[in-house]
Amino acid sequence: MKAEIISVGTELLLGEVVNTNASDIAKALKEIGISVYNIDTVGDNPKRLYEDIEKAYDRSDIIITTGGLGPTKDDLTKDIVADFLKVDMVLDENEVEKLKNYFKNRKDELNEGNMTQAYFPKGYEILDNPNGTASGCVINKDNKIIIVMPGPPREMKPMLKNYVIPYLSKLSSKYFASKTINVIGIGESKMEEMIMELIKHQTNPTIAPYFKDKSLTLRVMASDDDKKTAENMLLPTIEKIKSILNDNIYAYGDDLAIEDVVCKYLMDNNLTVSTVESCTGGMLSSRIINISGISKCFKSGYVTYSNESKIQLGVSEDTLQKYGAVSEQTAIEMATACAKKSGSDIAISTTGVAGPDGGSEEKPVGLVYIGLYINGQTYCKKLNIVGNRQRIRRIATSNALDFVRRTLKMPIYEIN
Amino acid sequence: MKAEIISVGTELLLGEVVNTNASDIAKALKEIGISVYNIDTVGDNPKRLYEDIEKAYDRSDIIITTGGLGPTKDDLTKDIVADFLKVDMVLDENEVEKLKNYFKNRKDELNEGNMTQAYFPKGYEILDNPNGTASGCVINKDNKIIIVMPGPPREMKPMLKNYVIPYLSKLSSKYFASKTINVIGIGESKMEEMIMELIKHQTNPTIAPYFKDKSLTLRVMASDDDKKTAENMLLPTIEKIKSILNDNIYAYGDDLAIEDVVCKYLMDNNLTVSTVESCTGGMLSSRIINISGISKCFKSGYVTYSNESKIQLGVSEDTLQKYGAVSEQTAIEMATACAKKSGSDIAISTTGVAGPDGGSEEKPVGLVYIGLYINGQTYCKKLNIVGNRQRIRRIATSNALDFVRRTLKMPIYEIN
Repeated sequence: MKAEIISVGTELLLGEVVNTNASDIAKALKEIGISVYNIDTVGDNPKRLYEDIEKAYDRSDIIITTGGLGPTKDDLTKDIVADFLKVDMVLDENEVEKLKNYFKNRKDELNEGNMTQAYFPKGYEILDNPNGTASGCVINKDNKIIIVMPGPPREMKPMLKNYVIPYLSKLSSKYFASKTINVIGIGESKMEEMIMELIKHQTNPTIAPYFKDKSLTLRVMASDDDKKTAENMLLPTIEKIKSILNDNIYAYGDDLAIEDVVCKYLMDNNLTVSTVESCTGGMLSSRIINISGISKCFKSGYVTYSNESKIQLGVSEDTLQKYGAVSEQTAIEMATACAKKSGSDIAISTTGVAGPDGGSEEKPVGLVYIGLYINGQTYCKKLNIVGNRQRIRRIATSNALDFVRRTLKMPIYEIN
Repeated sequence: MKAEIISVGTELLLGEVVNTNASDIAKALKEIGISVYNIDTVGDNPKRLYEDIEKAYDRSDIIITTGGLGPTKDDLTKDIVADFLKVDMVLDENEVEKLKNYFKNRKDELNEGNMTQAYFPKGYEILDNPNGTASGCVINKDNKIIIVMPGPPREMKPMLKNYVIPYLSKLSSKYFASKTINVIGIGESKMEEMIMELIKHQTNPTIAPYFKDKSLTLRVMASDDDKKTAENMLLPTIEKIKSILNDNIYAYGDDLAIEDVVCKYLMDNNLTVSTVESCTGGMLSSRIINISGISKCFKSGYVTYSNESKIQLGVSEDTLQKYGAVSEQTAIEMATACAKKSGSDIAISTTGVAGPDGGSEEKPVGLVYIGLYINGQTYCKKLNIVGNRQRIRRIATSNALDFVRRTLKMPIYEIN
């Protein structure tokens, strides 16, 4: 089956937004054996959109659009689809209810624009959107499938994964088994170098490295007419990869950040944790607290950005003077003081030079120390991170979490 | 002038690569007043590429392609362009020299595939590529311009900036003035509703709303043959918008997050700040500390996620019992205790139900209180945020920063 993607939105033609939707959709389709024939981007222009749909309809089996489902006058995708299919736009009562509740919860009023979001081309099936007011829809007519999704990635991605891919998978006879391997602690090119030989000689299963959402993954995929066979085909390849990347693998499964894995382990083992951050400035605690249910483990977080606040927490002035704020000694004292003050089993500290200023010959921008306290034992890891301030802080945060995983020798996490 | 972008490469249709080239080119063209009519992505497929060029040539003045300039057999962009224009491919001796030197320096031999990179469609002008072996080219023929660039962003971007944009700028007589207005505190559709009438009646300047990088902006753009005139044309429209959106506008300029504006003000006025966070869990301090130079203002951050840690900071047990952790009273006590402990001029607190669990009839998921202490005065703001855990925390953080801006009545920020 051939598919085409039509991305709708003038903001894309103005370069205001990078079109990540197209690559997310293309990748997901590839994994169920549907090849993308074309990706087109049009503005909020009815005539051009109509032409695009016409052309795609003529040469492909599946048309997937993103964008143009908003409440404003220039959001016209559904109208153009209805127009092209020569069907009416009909009001969906459930969607009206959803909208009403949505705005009631926001203590905001439902305006006329929002009401248009409850209209769909006749013959539609709703694709639910828990993250916004614009539901998507599928129209399956005359052996052609038109799928309409919203533009914002945080709305489109769950819809793609939870509704569109399952829907389209049913249409293909082949079964596709796949497993995502999550990697941390090595760079993208390093990983590719390590598994290059393996990738070259793989056909089914295939191995594809992805660097997505700032995390490194390997996607292993096998296809067969039989589900069980396809699934079994994955195993030897995964074993091979494991033997090469060993403890750089932290999880199997999609969308598993390092904090998901570390926090799950802490919750399962009733370990309490606290953080004390200098250069990461709260990013570490923020990522931990983003995990629902962590309240039973997370005790306290301290952002001791200034020396004053480090001293207030319990770092000795001597240490700061003798070794400086960015040092192994300070990192360890920060973690120890944090554990003491919070009474946690585990305390994680970060201190480093995030830049762009403040670097020196001896302590360059990107130098970061991670301190770790675990039930009386202390550990420290030194990092040299390349990049801008934001990247240095982000990588430092991920490595702080990974340092906990490695020190506690957590098993590779897998969702069942 | 109308332009079209054609991105060539099967890897784009497989979702292995996100097409950042298209948005980089579109953005650069917009800034010199060239509007992008269409962005198309095709695989390494001669027939399809030919069709695309044909279609674009027919309806636009400028065609810009990226990709398909490599040394392999499926890199065919230049051949297809020559084919379409009915001109020969000719060998460029300088390019041959460049290739020879390139491979000599790498102690590698020049193969046949690489030699194809020295051939260009007759009538070409070279676009130099210091970052790779694939030079680009421009063919300006019969008032149509075809620009061919390599696919790798690190090769394409410098070529775009250093050669393509200067080349195209010369062709456009018009000058384009634009201003970006940054808005916070109202939703996208609410903002559009407020300025709909204005947008409808604007032609030059135009007004375009964008929801980009999680922040809400309005782009006002005017064009004229005279620079000063174009710039002056912006002013009345901006005044009108200001009178409608008034204090929801926090800055003029591109890429200005609310934290940039708030932190700049704190630094300029030597105001010290500290944070105490429950539901946002460090996201607030993290966003503040991401601003380089903030160390002179930021004193301490506390993540008091548990009641225990709130009490440790100085929130009274009574208050927590009587009103609960998510309450105006707790928010204000958190801010007050934080200011006291850190000795800051300003203390910001957040407490709320981030979900997905923990919501109740009385205190639903999304209910957030922002507490603020400013030199002895306390303030509180109640929010009801819709969305998932991450979104609730992100919006709460932005609103906490915005609450500081509004309470301190910061002027609209503008980069000069």
